[in-house]
Amino acid sequence: MTTSIGDSEATGASGDPPGVSALPVRTYAADVLGRAGEAVVLRGWLHRQRRLAAVSFLIIRDSSGLVQVVVRDSTLAAELASLVEESVLEVRGTVVANAQAPGGAEVVDPVVEVLVAPVAPPPFDLYRPQVTAALPTQLDHAAVALRHPARQTVQRIAAAAVAGFRSTLDGRGFVEVHTPKIVASATESGANVFALDYFGRTAYLAQSPQFYKQVMVGALERVYEVGPVFRAEPHDTARHLASYVSLDAELGFIDDHRDVMTVLRDVVGGMLSMIAERVPSVVDLVGALPVVPAEIPALHFRDALAMVGASTGEDLSGEPDLAPAHERWLGEWALREHGSDFVFVTGYPMQKRPFYTHPEPGDPRWSNSFDLLFRGLELVTGGQRLHRYEDYLAALERSGQPVEPYEGYLESFRHGMPPHGGFAIGLERFVARLTGAANVREVTLFPRDLHRLAP
Amino acid sequence: MTTSIGDSEATGASGDPPGVSALPVRTYAADVLGRAGEAVVLRGWLHRQRRLAAVSFLIIRDSSGLVQVVVRDSTLAAELASLVEESVLEVRGTVVANAQAPGGAEVVDPVVEVLVAPVAPPPFDLYRPQVTAALPTQLDHAAVALRHPARQTVQRIAAAAVAGFRSTLDGRGFVEVHTPKIVASATESGANVFALDYFGRTAYLAQSPQFYKQVMVGALERVYEVGPVFRAEPHDTARHLASYVSLDAELGFIDDHRDVMTVLRDVVGGMLSMIAERVPSVVDLVGALPVVPAEIPALHFRDALAMVGASTGEDLSGEPDLAPAHERWLGEWALREHGSDFVFVTGYPMQKRPFYTHPEPGDPRWSNSFDLLFRGLELVTGGQRLHRYEDYLAALERSGQPVEPYEGYLESFRHGMPPHGGFAIGLERFVARLTGAANVREVTLFPRDLHRLAP
Repeated sequence: MTTSIGDSEATGASGDPPGVSALPVRTYAADVLGRAGEAVVLRGWLHRQRRLAAVSFLIIRDSSGLVQVVVRDSTLAAELASLVEESVLEVRGTVVANAQAPGGAEVVDPVVEVLVAPVAPPPFDLYRPQVTAALPTQLDHAAVALRHPARQTVQRIAAAAVAGFRSTLDGRGFVEVHTPKIVASATESGANVFALDYFGRTAYLAQSPQFYKQVMVGALERVYEVGPVFRAEPHDTARHLASYVSLDAELGFIDDHRDVMTVLRDVVGGMLSMIAERVPSVVDLVGALPVVPAEIPALHFRDALAMVGASTGEDLSGEPDLAPAHERWLGEWALREHGSDFVFVTGYPMQKRPFYTHPEPGDPRWSNSFDLLFRGLELVTGGQRLHRYEDYLAALERSGQPVEPYEGYLESFRHGMPPHGGFAIGLERFVARLTGAANVREVTLFPRDLHRLAP
Repeated sequence: MTTSIGDSEATGASGDPPGVSALPVRTYAADVLGRAGEAVVLRGWLHRQRRLAAVSFLIIRDSSGLVQVVVRDSTLAAELASLVEESVLEVRGTVVANAQAPGGAEVVDPVVEVLVAPVAPPPFDLYRPQVTAALPTQLDHAAVALRHPARQTVQRIAAAAVAGFRSTLDGRGFVEVHTPKIVASATESGANVFALDYFGRTAYLAQSPQFYKQVMVGALERVYEVGPVFRAEPHDTARHLASYVSLDAELGFIDDHRDVMTVLRDVVGGMLSMIAERVPSVVDLVGALPVVPAEIPALHFRDALAMVGASTGEDLSGEPDLAPAHERWLGEWALREHGSDFVFVTGYPMQKRPFYTHPEPGDPRWSNSFDLLFRGLELVTGGQRLHRYEDYLAALERSGQPVEPYEGYLESFRHGMPPHGGFAIGLERFVARLTGAANVREVTLFPRDLHRLAP
């Protein structure tokens, strides 16, 4: 059903096109200002309609933004009154500069064609600055909520962040890889894995590409992967998801973890630069982007503990750790003393890190590992890994694990692996912290958690 | 254990670095020719050692390629004789141009340091032009097989193909998305899905991002995704995998499927251009890259059937289809008549396509869909989708499916969706066909199939 309202000419631009005519050239909302005085064809969704006594306004939303259409013909205005929001429209009209209109221009003398009529109005208003419905309601109606301009901006930020991750690493000789998401063993943590029926056998969803990216260092030296990881997190919190996008990198022939930190510094800088370049409207959402200093300040865990007043000296038997309040304090310290939104904490106790972590050569109680804190919150974890076969055998024995489930992984180390290390960034956490979202679900397209499996 | 062989100076470049010294500047194999007469430091794997009466050769492999090291000192040569292949080495020496050496230069007067010694020699030779071990053996020892230079080239081709896919779409206003891999319902085909235990409920691994990318057209108009898809394929063939990387795109405000084909043409061209740009050695592996004509020839399914002599006229009750031999014939026809390695077949019978396929407006027995054949083999499937809510209800009823599992998907169509369509490219199949691999497993890092779940 295609209905024309106004003096529509034959356009060939119906919802069920006849198959031979080309669509007329479309103007995007963001380009209207530059076409003052010209006739244009807009296509998009009816974002909002406002009816005043003498004039009606249609706000049309497309992927570039919003544009105002002015309807002064009272007959046409009356015909348009029945249009529900989210109608898919084509509007032909003339652009007029108007400093008072949103974006500095508007479209007048419109002919409006309904390309596709909704079956019902949206379950909540999309035209308000923020969706006011409760988060669970938004998530239940993700197909609608994701149309909100602010949610679109968040998704563009996420896409630009990933593009910046890749372009930085592409420029440094890294090769993108795609590693298995279905694995034979519930290794690494053992807990919190999803089990599945794999042709009659039990298999598991990969919690990270850790082992595979290390194996690939043996072939390509420098690799990265952007892909889903799966955690059967029984925690119902604002920051845990059952699946998230992990930005993983791993590189060989390093001196130690500090070479990894140097790459990570450039990667975070590249992510923020790409966001600034591709999503200029980010400033409306988050204000100024954080600055990544040429050298991010770094503190050894031992010194960080002392600075926050939680030092236990040389006694690590109580498993000292940095509490969230300590991390916030360190974030404030980095900003105050170094003008940096970022701070590295290095050297975490070996007992806090996974078995494949490389110890500090001079003192094996500590590790060649790091966390990167962003505004006082952990954003990235990484470090140098073991690279000698015999070290892996010893580490597995120390952690009480059998060798057999790790055979495919260990084969790399049997055949010569260089010193190497890497890091992993959680995409949704990065975007949430950058945009100030209180809940990581606000920046995830279709989140999966303890309770949510749809849409 | 770090052993130095030859007159090694202190370098600070040991496998367990002391943590303060920087590694000396490293020269990659591919850069040696340009540094004739200079002292260099190589790092890499011992790819091969050849001992002659008066001289020994070490072939060093790094991520850039191979370089020959000449050992004329008989004492040193004897010391090096015990080195096994895949030893991780640092070699200091002087570059000498030599037209007879591989790459036109070699390194002489070496000092060799073993950074990491393998525990055992590799299970098969990596220095031969191709790995001669049987494919299952290679797959069992993927950590080693993937180090072979030809396998590295294949992985670089795959990475460049994906980069070309993204950059083409980035340049056309598409936004990258990441959609759920765990879903609530076994929709779409119903069969061949992996079931998993999701916090006590049964969930499924997504067979494609089809529904989610359509939903996202409602928000961002143009989206793409690169990610794993999962098929519980009970077929043990050379082209089926239980998981592969799908390159998906979807765009709104189209006229019909031909707008999708235009984008796809540019995407395939962009993938091949990026491969040519980033992996010049592709020509050694596959010869000249295929050319994508400005307009790829397209045949309606009806006409294609007639041309291959399989026409059934207007009678579709026997479910006519193009057999593999027919597709090969069409590939030859496209090359002969149009000089094209690619040919579109459009308009497949609706009964052959999924329920969300948009029919041909003039004759609903046919569909606004297409396949893209590459050298006579199906490479891409795509088309225009339904966009009206009532059409979905009718299509689901026709296919005998309930509405309830599709609620989150259908909500998009309740609230105004523009005419849209898209396509999906299987990355591994694309790379296999481009490189002439007989089995898709040859170009997959760690394949998953009916029998294989590790490494």
